[in-house]
Amino acid sequence: MVMMLMKTTAIANSNIALVKYWGKRNSDLILPYNSSVSMTLNNLNTKTTVEFNKTLSEYEVTINRKVVKGEELARVANHLELLQKSSPHKIFAKVMSESNFPKKAGLASSASGFAALTLTGTKALGQDFTVKDLSILARRGSGSASRSILGGFVEWTKGSMSDGSDSYALQIEKEAHWPELSMIVTIISSEEKKVSSRAGMSQTVKNSPFYSAWLDTIESDVEKMKQAISEKDFIQLGKIAELNAIKMHATMQTTTPPIIYWEAGSLSIMKEVLKLREEGIECYFTMDAGPQVKILCQQKDIETIKSRVTEINLVKDIIICHPGKEARLTEDHLF
Amino acid sequence: MVMMLMKTTAIANSNIALVKYWGKRNSDLILPYNSSVSMTLNNLNTKTTVEFNKTLSEYEVTINRKVVKGEELARVANHLELLQKSSPHKIFAKVMSESNFPKKAGLASSASGFAALTLTGTKALGQDFTVKDLSILARRGSGSASRSILGGFVEWTKGSMSDGSDSYALQIEKEAHWPELSMIVTIISSEEKKVSSRAGMSQTVKNSPFYSAWLDTIESDVEKMKQAISEKDFIQLGKIAELNAIKMHATMQTTTPPIIYWEAGSLSIMKEVLKLREEGIECYFTMDAGPQVKILCQQKDIETIKSRVTEINLVKDIIICHPGKEARLTEDHLF
Repeated sequence: MVMMLMKTTAIANSNIALVKYWGKRNSDLILPYNSSVSMTLNNLNTKTTVEFNKTLSEYEVTINRKVVKGEELARVANHLELLQKSSPHKIFAKVMSESNFPKKAGLASSASGFAALTLTGTKALGQDFTVKDLSILARRGSGSASRSILGGFVEWTKGSMSDGSDSYALQIEKEAHWPELSMIVTIISSEEKKVSSRAGMSQTVKNSPFYSAWLDTIESDVEKMKQAISEKDFIQLGKIAELNAIKMHATMQTTTPPIIYWEAGSLSIMKEVLKLREEGIECYFTMDAGPQVKILCQQKDIETIKSRVTEINLVKDIIICHPGKEARLTEDHLF
Repeated sequence: MVMMLMKTTAIANSNIALVKYWGKRNSDLILPYNSSVSMTLNNLNTKTTVEFNKTLSEYEVTINRKVVKGEELARVANHLELLQKSSPHKIFAKVMSESNFPKKAGLASSASGFAALTLTGTKALGQDFTVKDLSILARRGSGSASRSILGGFVEWTKGSMSDGSDSYALQIEKEAHWPELSMIVTIISSEEKKVSSRAGMSQTVKNSPFYSAWLDTIESDVEKMKQAISEKDFIQLGKIAELNAIKMHATMQTTTPPIIYWEAGSLSIMKEVLKLREEGIECYFTMDAGPQVKILCQQKDIETIKSRVTEINLVKDIIICHPGKEARLTEDHLF
């Protein structure tokens, strides 16, 4: 096989899990214990350029204008080798990646990062995969990346096969189905988190007394969430998402030692959301493995909520998101 | 029977549950779903004077120099009528009660309050009950009050009888067993909480998806805690107490709507405790149904921890406690 090598660039959006993924049944293949549901986010994205080059003697990876080494480099390199699995001769590559938001801070930078890397990497190798296979490949880099391959509203089915061939993301609805659904991302801290999602999940599965109780609730959350999305039932979507997020955090907080991603500022916003709701403004919070609080709301309430949240002095930045599109190629290369 | 009526005064200390009580299997008799373990606290107490008086036409209750009415009055009046259950003619009483700490803020004011009221009330009626029967009576006013009848380290056994006759507190060890065990109470807010413990418990039992998982862990926590107390094993005591508290909060946070007693300041202190531990200073947090964080530590570390916690600007006050004694009578009346 003659491989056509070229420089390619892809953009992938981050996604917010409305029903969370937390815990792997197989950590080599990144197979989850539970299915999850997400919304791809239009305003949080990662752009990645890859060039395989036979003259290189190692992988050269730059993320957010910083050359990466060690574990972070190894993770990218491993993924690029996975993409070349069928090739007899491994080729090194130059990779440059930029996100428009803080990484490793609970904003799913690994989701958009590995989705973009998978799409651009396979393309640079001259391969043309189906969306399903891209999702499976992206999953191997980071579980939630499997969802960022698709746009709109997405389900990542946990699957049951031991080789992971039935664990991938499928679109529930396109982004045009519900464009007015909004998410206000409040940035509390852009510091990289102390406990990675990967380590946090593993510890939670291992010793949280609530882990099975958490899993017992998920299939029902997934079904109800898919229905809420199809029916554009905002209150139902918000209620399930909020409770699901609290359950995930409660499960990891009860590990030993406790994993507490919430910060003082997170709690202030969570309580403000509960207060806004008491006042009749429909909004719900969700959080991933980090301190940032994401407020789900309707287009009409964005300004009111934004101004209330801005008053909390622990909030550093605010980003408004709507349903976004799938991972895609672009000619606008980073180098 | 001729009743000897007199003015009597009792002092009872608050207590901190090291293995928490959360949820009633019978809310009339206040029978808990699980056993609990506590330490009676020497520096948080309530003093209550009662005088039954045939000339009164209603109960006159003053708490912390404020005449109480409505629900709060009804709860005291109901308790005084319970104490007169065997008497054919009900007599009204004048009650004055003072706590040296904020009430209804998660510092177990109802524990010390109803323990003091039970002891002084029965005495004022000329009755002489055993500690066991006082504990059963106090339980009817507020579950955790059953524990404040005794000093030192206490277990409240859930019991199994439907009449509640085997659900009462027993001393595990006297206060002199471990006088150097310390608790730093950090006051974040002295506001009365929005959701009472009573309402919070009921909602949690009704709809938290983690409630049975919580209950499944308790008997083991109780056994390990009793052992840690007997062996004066501080690390074991701290670990179980901290995880038990997080589990209780996690369980109530996952109700709908979520009950979140944590405040921004609570979280700051919880994280400071985790940080202190990483630095090698042994300390653990616990919290009741309120925002205050209580830090369990050893006598030798009090000053270090206190100075670190004082730096957090959300901390309003600090109270140091050690194991305290049982509810007792005093001649020093409030009126």
